Amino acid sequence: MQLNAPLDMHLHLRDGEMLENIATASAHTFSGAIIMPNLVPPVTTKEEVLAYKNRILAAIGDEKFTPYMTLFFNPNYTKEFLASVKNEITAVKLYPAGITTNSEGGVSGFDVEELRPALEALSDLNIPLCVHGETNGFVMDREAEFVTIYEKLATAFPKLKIIMEHITTKESVTALDRFENLYATITIHHLLITLDDVAGGMLKPHLFCKPIAKRPEDRDALLNVALKAHPKVMFGSDSAPHPKHAKEACGCAAGVFTAPIALQLLAELFENHHASIDNLQNFISNNAQTIYGVTPLQKTVILEKKPFMVPLDYHGVVPMYAGEKIAYSIKEVTHT
Amino acid sequence: MQLNAPLDMHLHLRDGEMLENIATASAHTFSGAIIMPNLVPPVTTKEEVLAYKNRILAAIGDEKFTPYMTLFFNPNYTKEFLASVKNEITAVKLYPAGITTNSEGGVSGFDVEELRPALEALSDLNIPLCVHGETNGFVMDREAEFVTIYEKLATAFPKLKIIMEHITTKESVTALDRFENLYATITIHHLLITLDDVAGGMLKPHLFCKPIAKRPEDRDALLNVALKAHPKVMFGSDSAPHPKHAKEACGCAAGVFTAPIALQLLAELFENHHASIDNLQNFISNNAQTIYGVTPLQKTVILEKKPFMVPLDYHGVVPMYAGEKIAYSIKEVTHT
Repeated sequence: MQLNAPLDMHLHLRDGEMLENIATASAHTFSGAIIMPNLVPPVTTKEEVLAYKNRILAAIGDEKFTPYMTLFFNPNYTKEFLASVKNEITAVKLYPAGITTNSEGGVSGFDVEELRPALEALSDLNIPLCVHGETNGFVMDREAEFVTIYEKLATAFPKLKIIMEHITTKESVTALDRFENLYATITIHHLLITLDDVAGGMLKPHLFCKPIAKRPEDRDALLNVALKAHPKVMFGSDSAPHPKHAKEACGCAAGVFTAPIALQLLAELFENHHASIDNLQNFISNNAQTIYGVTPLQKTVILEKKPFMVPLDYHGVVPMYAGEKIAYSIKEVTHT
Repeated sequence: MQLNAPLDMHLHLRDGEMLENIATASAHTFSGAIIMPNLVPPVTTKEEVLAYKNRILAAIGDEKFTPYMTLFFNPNYTKEFLASVKNEITAVKLYPAGITTNSEGGVSGFDVEELRPALEALSDLNIPLCVHGETNGFVMDREAEFVTIYEKLATAFPKLKIIMEHITTKESVTALDRFENLYATITIHHLLITLDDVAGGMLKPHLFCKPIAKRPEDRDALLNVALKAHPKVMFGSDSAPHPKHAKEACGCAAGVFTAPIALQLLAELFENHHASIDNLQNFISNNAQTIYGVTPLQKTVILEKKPFMVPLDYHGVVPMYAGEKIAYSIKEVTHT
């Protein structure tokens, strides 16, 4: 099975030692990835974008990989500022305040008029807005509740490309077709698990993430649009490394680490559901190229149906399915 | 605040070193408790009941405390057998197979005719049947789905006292009033937390239990019947100790350890909701005396409104609210 120019449209690479340890897990098999800006402090200036990009490029060494950089959204961004940084970024990421890891400086309340100057500037400059769409409501309802905010933003800024990040619910899936300017990324773990896998048997901290995995009917809705490669959905792993001790603790951090096995799992998933390789190609790259208008580095990944034993950890980060066998392996990666 | 003869109508004391370490946490403040039989192997014979009871009595030392013993339900129990063990037990506990800790030998399928001989025998002998009511469905639906099984059993065996153990949903609460022979226990943690507390912020393994904490409207339904001391509901802590390493691990065991702080938390809860001390007395003892027809040891517990710092662990078992302050302390325990 051959995939061309795989793109991960939602990736956390962190910084410092963690960045150095895990960057190649993505850079080896993906042509590029949208890099999330929720560092401490968050990435909010051109200088920070360029410096972070350089640290990423240093961390990936010889791998051929494009980090598509993002800014952490702030409603005070001016059009002049955004125009000055436009060439260095691919998107801006909006976090509701306090909703996930390192999101304390995010948006509180979603008053359209308060957001208008910054969002109209993004719209005019054709910079997509990536959104972590959760309210601070009950954990199983947060994303569905946020759909009304998506609708408000999509209506108020009809030319702004709004990416509903890591969607997990049927409500978000149906919103896709109601608004021309709404798009979505979907993770591999939300295509595979439900809350049952996290908390139905033993509690599994390594499957705990935000948004939390939802109900079977939600997963079915996600599978439906991913497997047919709905043109408005893209793969975004939301691969989010935390050290083992931060996951297996009294208060476990949110995030699933899938970067090194994402393509293998997608190959198995699409095969199990009898979805075509063309659909997988669209889901993993072509849709994103169209939506974002990016031309990725040419990289070809050959997968083979040969069991791969997922390592127990990658530099102290426990991946999804650690110690288990998955059906596909990476056979060869080439680039031109 | 004074409570008389507190009863814990659902308690796990385990066995061996764990039993020796944690039995006094219940025996000090409670007059008695229904002791769950899900040991390995489960308690299924008169000899095992008596031997387990003796180990419990040895573990509690000088404390005055009645362990109300139970048998692990088996559909093959005959009336003769049940009659022979009747004087040694207070109830029989039914587990669906594989639904919680050490329940592998439980009931699969709930065919009324298959269960009829054993359940009619219990009914005739006036032995209550305690039930862990969960299907093997989606984790948030398991208890609500089981209500149809409660209804089937309540209808088929109208004289059998059926205790819906550790109820967590509004569906179970409404079933209480539809069938004369359905009763319920409610834990302190399900009166305090929802799934938000388990998985809404960081993941909290020490609040992970089965049934899992549900939605805010479910907790409200439980609070409604507990605070007014609905005559068919009783306190049952489901306090379930696991060693710290089994809770803070890749696959965390289910159970919340509340035995040493249950009365203090109930005092605070009832006060916060302006419920009367009479209602608390009924919830914590009198309702259970009526439903089970037991006369507990006379024990008086005086609570005072003085902050209590919950220990980080009790012999390696992490309690609910470990390291946090709660509003009430035990001032004095006396027995006559």
